[in-house]
Amino acid sequence: MVNKVAAPTRTVDEIMSWYEGQNPGVLTNLYRVLMHGRLGGTGKLVILPVDQGFEHGPTRSFAPNPPAYDPLYHFRLAVETGCSAYAAPLGFLEAGAAQFAGKVPLILKLNSHDILQDEVDPLGGQTASVKDALRLGCVGIGYTIYPGTKDRRLQYEQFRAIAEEAKENGLLVVLWSYPRGGSMKSEDETALDVVAYAAHLAAQLGAHIIKVKLPSAHIWDKKSAEAIQKYNIPIETLADRVRYIVQAAFNGKRIVINSGGPAKDDAAVFDEIRAIRDGGGFGSIIGRNSFQRPWDEAVKFLDTIMGIYEGASPSADVPRKNKGATISVAPCRFRSVLR
Amino acid sequence: MVNKVAAPTRTVDEIMSWYEGQNPGVLTNLYRVLMHGRLGGTGKLVILPVDQGFEHGPTRSFAPNPPAYDPLYHFRLAVETGCSAYAAPLGFLEAGAAQFAGKVPLILKLNSHDILQDEVDPLGGQTASVKDALRLGCVGIGYTIYPGTKDRRLQYEQFRAIAEEAKENGLLVVLWSYPRGGSMKSEDETALDVVAYAAHLAAQLGAHIIKVKLPSAHIWDKKSAEAIQKYNIPIETLADRVRYIVQAAFNGKRIVINSGGPAKDDAAVFDEIRAIRDGGGFGSIIGRNSFQRPWDEAVKFLDTIMGIYEGASPSADVPRKNKGATISVAPCRFRSVLR
Amino acid sequence: MVNKVAAPTRTVDEIMSWYEGQNPGVLTNLYRVLMHGRLGGTGKLVILPVDQGFEHGPTRSFAPNPPAYDPLYHFRLAVETGCSAYAAPLGFLEAGAAQFAGKVPLILKLNSHDILQDEVDPLGGQTASVKDALRLGCVGIGYTIYPGTKDRRLQYEQFRAIAEEAKENGLLVVLWSYPRGGSMKSEDETALDVVAYAAHLAAQLGAHIIKVKLPSAHIWDKKSAEAIQKYNIPIETLADRVRYIVQAAFNGKRIVINSGGPAKDDAAVFDEIRAIRDGGGFGSIIGRNSFQRPWDEAVKFLDTIMGIYEGASPSADVPRKNKGATISVAPCRFRSVLR
Amino acid sequence: MVNKVAAPTRTVDEIMSWYEGQNPGVLTNLYRVLMHGRLGGTGKLVILPVDQGFEHGPTRSFAPNPPAYDPLYHFRLAVETGCSAYAAPLGFLEAGAAQFAGKVPLILKLNSHDILQDEVDPLGGQTASVKDALRLGCVGIGYTIYPGTKDRRLQYEQFRAIAEEAKENGLLVVLWSYPRGGSMKSEDETALDVVAYAAHLAAQLGAHIIKVKLPSAHIWDKKSAEAIQKYNIPIETLADRVRYIVQAAFNGKRIVINSGGPAKDDAAVFDEIRAIRDGGGFGSIIGRNSFQRPWDEAVKFLDTIMGIYEGASPSADVPRKNKGATISVAPCRFRSVLR
Amino acid sequence: MVNKVAAPTRTVDEIMSWYEGQNPGVLTNLYRVLMHGRLGGTGKLVILPVDQGFEHGPTRSFAPNPPAYDPLYHFRLAVETGCSAYAAPLGFLEAGAAQFAGKVPLILKLNSHDILQDEVDPLGGQTASVKDALRLGCVGIGYTIYPGTKDRRLQYEQFRAIAEEAKENGLLVVLWSYPRGGSMKSEDETALDVVAYAAHLAAQLGAHIIKVKLPSAHIWDKKSAEAIQKYNIPIETLADRVRYIVQAAFNGKRIVINSGGPAKDDAAVFDEIRAIRDGGGFGSIIGRNSFQRPWDEAVKFLDTIMGIYEGASPSADVPRKNKGATISVAPCRFRSVLR
Repeated sequence: MVNKVAAPTRTVDEIMSWYEGQNPGVLTNLYRVLMHGRLGGTGKLVILPVDQGFEHGPTRSFAPNPPAYDPLYHFRLAVETGCSAYAAPLGFLEAGAAQFAGKVPLILKLNSHDILQDEVDPLGGQTASVKDALRLGCVGIGYTIYPGTKDRRLQYEQFRAIAEEAKENGLLVVLWSYPRGGSMKSEDETALDVVAYAAHLAAQLGAHIIKVKLPSAHIWDKKSAEAIQKYNIPIETLADRVRYIVQAAFNGKRIVINSGGPAKDDAAVFDEIRAIRDGGGFGSIIGRNSFQRPWDEAVKFLDTIMGIYEGASPSADVPRKNKGATISVAPCRFRSVLR
Repeated sequence: MVNKVAAPTRTVDEIMSWYEGQNPGVLTNLYRVLMHGRLGGTGKLVILPVDQGFEHGPTRSFAPNPPAYDPLYHFRLAVETGCSAYAAPLGFLEAGAAQFAGKVPLILKLNSHDILQDEVDPLGGQTASVKDALRLGCVGIGYTIYPGTKDRRLQYEQFRAIAEEAKENGLLVVLWSYPRGGSMKSEDETALDVVAYAAHLAAQLGAHIIKVKLPSAHIWDKKSAEAIQKYNIPIETLADRVRYIVQAAFNGKRIVINSGGPAKDDAAVFDEIRAIRDGGGFGSIIGRNSFQRPWDEAVKFLDTIMGIYEGASPSADVPRKNKGATISVAPCRFRSVLR
Repeated sequence: MVNKVAAPTRTVDEIMSWYEGQNPGVLTNLYRVLMHGRLGGTGKLVILPVDQGFEHGPTRSFAPNPPAYDPLYHFRLAVETGCSAYAAPLGFLEAGAAQFAGKVPLILKLNSHDILQDEVDPLGGQTASVKDALRLGCVGIGYTIYPGTKDRRLQYEQFRAIAEEAKENGLLVVLWSYPRGGSMKSEDETALDVVAYAAHLAAQLGAHIIKVKLPSAHIWDKKSAEAIQKYNIPIETLADRVRYIVQAAFNGKRIVINSGGPAKDDAAVFDEIRAIRDGGGFGSIIGRNSFQRPWDEAVKFLDTIMGIYEGASPSADVPRKNKGATISVAPCRFRSVLR
Repeated sequence: MVNKVAAPTRTVDEIMSWYEGQNPGVLTNLYRVLMHGRLGGTGKLVILPVDQGFEHGPTRSFAPNPPAYDPLYHFRLAVETGCSAYAAPLGFLEAGAAQFAGKVPLILKLNSHDILQDEVDPLGGQTASVKDALRLGCVGIGYTIYPGTKDRRLQYEQFRAIAEEAKENGLLVVLWSYPRGGSMKSEDETALDVVAYAAHLAAQLGAHIIKVKLPSAHIWDKKSAEAIQKYNIPIETLADRVRYIVQAAFNGKRIVINSGGPAKDDAAVFDEIRAIRDGGGFGSIIGRNSFQRPWDEAVKFLDTIMGIYEGASPSADVPRKNKGATISVAPCRFRSVLR
Repeated sequence: MVNKVAAPTRTVDEIMSWYEGQNPGVLTNLYRVLMHGRLGGTGKLVILPVDQGFEHGPTRSFAPNPPAYDPLYHFRLAVETGCSAYAAPLGFLEAGAAQFAGKVPLILKLNSHDILQDEVDPLGGQTASVKDALRLGCVGIGYTIYPGTKDRRLQYEQFRAIAEEAKENGLLVVLWSYPRGGSMKSEDETALDVVAYAAHLAAQLGAHIIKVKLPSAHIWDKKSAEAIQKYNIPIETLADRVRYIVQAAFNGKRIVINSGGPAKDDAAVFDEIRAIRDGGGFGSIIGRNSFQRPWDEAVKFLDTIMGIYEGASPSADVPRKNKGATISVAPCRFRSVLR
């Protein structure tokens, strides 16, 4: 696939305007991601993440498609399908960053967690640094927090220091926000109010791009349930719920993307993508569904997904769709000089 | 609303004199806050804090007034109602600090706590830095301690390092002091002696501005109860109790402000404001009551509160009201050269 | 009271000689304290400490004498009664250090502990820094250790770093050494062997001035009890016991001062002062007994105490009184050139 | 034995190409190890590790062959048998690094663990530094992680910082990856899926050379067992299993070496070596089996092992043998200019 | 006693050769200790340690000989009896380092432990720094580890950092290695295999001089017991066991010294000294037995001990006595140029 230089768009200018005040380095890397690949210029993102080997072990992750044991495989997949970016832990990026230098925006995952120990409150650990991201030519760094866990404080503080250093060095900060821990049951982790809380926390912690799970219609917190009922917040369809979590992340002024986890068949995945699109979400981060099938099928699968997003109404419309937001749009420093 | 340049007043000069010895950077930022907005020059403060999204989740916080999901909403509210300052976590300030640069004094909350995990002894975590406050143009930093919790030591020491760095960089240090933890029941957290202790600790820790809850007439500590009885300390009215906690914070020589928490109706809130005013308190920090109602109602609500404070006797009188203080007033280096 | 410039004395020269090897900055500040105030030149010290507000809460501490809520009150009390030094936490010193600059030697307490949580093994936390002490013009820093507590290691190591930095910057290091913790009952905390151990630990940790409680005749450790009996150590009178703890602190070559805690009537306090004097102690640190009574009574009370110490035989005699010490006195580099 | 200067080979060039992107210092030290000793140029490694004294105590370790108490013994053994490198803790390397300077590549073990305390979740501690490795002339550093233990986070983070510093200084990073801890039984520690996970984790953490145990046919994780069955992964022979763990470490693009632990007789050891060779493994790390027998027997034993490896098909073939890998081989920057 | 300048000896040259590779600063300080005092040049050491006051309290330690409360007493004792070095915590060294500057090599103990809290797993804390040792003119630093305790990791890592800094600054590193903790009974702490393990750990951690307890004939670890029996290691006499622990510490290539603890009568102590001498040990560290008796008796006691060591065969013979060591002696860079 030819990685054409996309022309700036109003949609991208609009998104850039929400990040006014960030330094030029951060803005440049944000622009790179928004303009890269097939969805460049649309305001939508499809990111390929491959941290499953660390998180769940290599056998579960790569046995279904053995070429995926190879780190170069994922670079090539991200490049050839026109993904917006490729995110992975240190080892995978170190193994191909030189050969694929510049061909796809890279996001280095700075912390990881394995499952060789059963844990109610996962914590993970820092496994790479901002300096690593810089020497590998990355556009940004990734980090996972587990709000709700006992030692989340350690994560928030580690993230804080990392994000500060990343921003000072002009890197994007991408935050995976996955509620967990002893106060929540498994189903609570994707409860609408919990995912909205997770998205809001990530935004308050200063993330530029936020990754959360797709929310169910279940509500965890009693007072939140009362508020949702009292103020008639629509939560029936998945699109409704996506709209709500986008609203929870600064009324749509932070990029929120979703994964659907291990969805069972492709039709279900595509329905989720349509719901994200219709709810004003900003795109997807799709790992297992991409690399756990043969190359040709993966290419076709990602092609379909990007096609759905391409059919999306321009994201410049998104804030208007978020009914809650009524104050006027911020003056847009980034409105294109090309038009 | 026009943000007129207020003329220096004896009251402000008086307050400034209590901070003699602080460096010119700190004094300058203190002066900025005391002279800003509708109450500029009166020696009273009304600060807008919006950390509820982090502390209690976005649904509980913003569903009652959906425009408040938007970070720009709160900047505008603080600016247009003439608040003395606006305090929020990193994400909210980063999202608007460039567009609203200079329009309202900003206080960056450097630590936060969420409620996705049930905890007897909350701890919170540092989520932003003094460097962040400087790059965002803030006048000061905010921090919350939970005296009485098991790991308060970690908080005191984190605060100490932050406060040292903030002062060295000429930033104001605002300390939220909320007793909590396993040795106290819920009602003890607002006991008069406990709130007085909280205010005194904050002052001893070197805070410039102290935020505590409004105290009830309940007493937690037996020996303190005996002392209050033996020395006939008046504690019947809320104004009495406000007077006592102001006294506990260096005999009125540190700025102490209050919040009333989630008060039920406006009349009750206004009564509390009058009690703060009559007891010689320095003002209020009003979050949920401001942004959880429609814009026009919020503007009117804050207008009423500031009106009550404007009717206050000049704070230069405050030390005289604190009956305990009998030694003569310190020589006032800041007495205005304009009169 | 006029703060006359005292003439150097043999006693002070003698004490200075014990600190040979310390840098000139430390020696200068030690000299300042020894020569300051009414007891200047006598080799005795009376220090005013006001950390009760932090340690026990403001109500218990200041309700008996409300002017004491004011930080300036204590500066004035220390200055006007001719105390050797004034010791307090950050907030209290910051509030008056500029106005009272140079009028009394200041000691900044760098750690503190509150009682809003019940604890068997108190730990406290660092609440100010050596840099704070320097910017406030202090002659030294203070620190409290609780030998016998579970986490005393954290205290010893924090103190070690602080003491190193303080000495490098020419500051005096004053160490409060209060045994506590799960292996001791309340009465053990003032057992003779325990207090002697506390004084010895403080000396070994490199403190210049040591503060311990007055010891009772109770013995905690069985083997120590056997040694005391076997070697006929006199412990009957308080003066005997003071003599023993002074001996335990490098045979009288470190300055050891005492407090008596909340003694009931003045006569009892004066008896204790006489015992300290007769036992070769170096003075007192008197907080609650000073500031919890009206100004005039406090002035008279401290006047009486200093009078008792003035009647002391010159401390140059002290080492001779410590019967255990038989090797000859160190060559005295500081012997006055004025005689 | 003469340490001839080996000529560069295609095999070594091939291996070097997998590390493209590493700095020249790291590449130089990798080349040194690959070209050193009897197996220089073959792409196979035999490393002598002597950390048993620390890990299991000197009596168990050296009583069978008393000259091995001497640190110089092991240097000489590694030099004279033509081992690829010698790895040991600080004390052993400090004791001979000057006398044997340059004669054999040295790897300094930076953490160690002793067994004087029974522990379910071993942690070990850092006992030397990257600076030590540099001053001793080492080519690399070694570190052991215990994935599956409760505090593995501390290890991962300590390793991360060490690896970053090592790479910045051009040192090779060798990682021992030994799963342990409360969620695993003893037999699980060598389960095929667990060892594969361990190898993958090490690769993702950025190790250049990975050491794992030889895997059994046992499977620990149910989902991994299902995947192995579903995708017909061959695991019957030891060679099959070695092939699988090499695949798990980036499809053969990271050097993975094995130890067999305390194998009972030499024939069994040699069979294991043949399985490693046939499965495409990169060599062995052989401690106890080498130094716990008399010198002459050790020389002969290592000679036999290296002979087996010398008979190996060139490791350039290895990636082709890893059936899972189908994408084309990376362009080889290092292909020899000599041919 | 006249501190004659000793002439270099072959024995000392031999010992120096084991430390080849250490920097000239370390070598210089090692030479100073080996050449100082009555045993200067013999390769044997008698060191005076006085940390009992900190470790066991002043009453137990100094009541038997009250002049020993005085820090100057111990300097004088070490100087006048011709001890090889004097080791003590910060306070004791600070109190006399200026007056006794250069008269005896000083070793600053950098960590200490008190017994005011009952503990199964002692940890101690750092109470002084390498910088302290340098400003006090010390030749080296001392540190105590408790292998076998739960948190030994903290000790190993603290020691590692300290040892690195000490060596960089040319200071000797002396390590007290005392096994303890919940997996061992009291008698296990002096078991032969345990003491050998302790000595080996200390050597591997990079200590220059190692202090362990005298071993009993008891064996703690079953597998070690089997090895001792299988390989006929002689352990019957104390000399046998000393020989074994010297062998465990790098086959006699690290200086290992012993203490006998609180031995009951002098004859028993002298027997132990003879056993150390006959077993090839390097000397003694003798605290309580020296300073807990009157001056004249202490002088005579140390005189006898040094006499026993003077009668020792030159330590150049020691390696030959260690039967296990068969490889030839390292080329001796330090062989005297004077002969």
